[in-house]
Amino acid sequence: MIRHTVMFNLRHAKGSLMEKSFLRDADVLATIPGVKSFEKRRQVSAKNEYAFSFAMQFDDQKAYDVYNTHPKHVTFVRDRWNKEVAKFLEADYEAL
Amino acid sequence: MIRHTVMFNLRHAKGSLMEKSFLRDADVLATIPGVKSFEKRRQVSAKNEYAFSFAMQFDDQKAYDVYNTHPKHVTFVRDRWNKEVAKFLEADYEAL
Repeated sequence: MIRHTVMFNLRHAKGSLMEKSFLRDADVLATIPGVKSFEKRRQVSAKNEYAFSFAMQFDDQKAYDVYNTHPKHVTFVRDRWNKEVAKFLEADYEAL
Repeated sequence: MIRHTVMFNLRHAKGSLMEKSFLRDADVLATIPGVKSFEKRRQVSAKNEYAFSFAMQFDDQKAYDVYNTHPKHVTFVRDRWNKEVAKFLEADYEAL
């Protein structure tokens, strides 16, 4: 099992309609086959500069690869993520 | 519900007994009242410089505060974390 996460900041103003739109439309990622336990989260620690995080799980690397190359993911990254996200940090986890 | 996470690197060599000792002894954190879903994870994305992560959940800020000030946590931070961790990044999440 792989837990894929990304912390990020948007270019949009806090609480703006553009912010809400991005966070809402990201739900498309949860519809991609193999994506499990999709979560959208607010980052609230003052020790961390990021404002949001998405997290999801894949059964294995094959499912992760399907996600990465899926047209819904590629389109979301091209049309939304690359234009609306100011900064991000990905992390992938496997249980110890 | 608050999800508390920390990504970190150890000063110890990869695969060393010191590394194993730190990761094993961190289990003490899971015994602190209010800590739920404690997870120890390896960070495997090449896009991220950290090697490990701990994650846990608290029902609310009060439970988080109990953890932060609990002697087991304070002792672990003082005697192990501050001496053996080279770099870290905390993040706390609330569901959107």
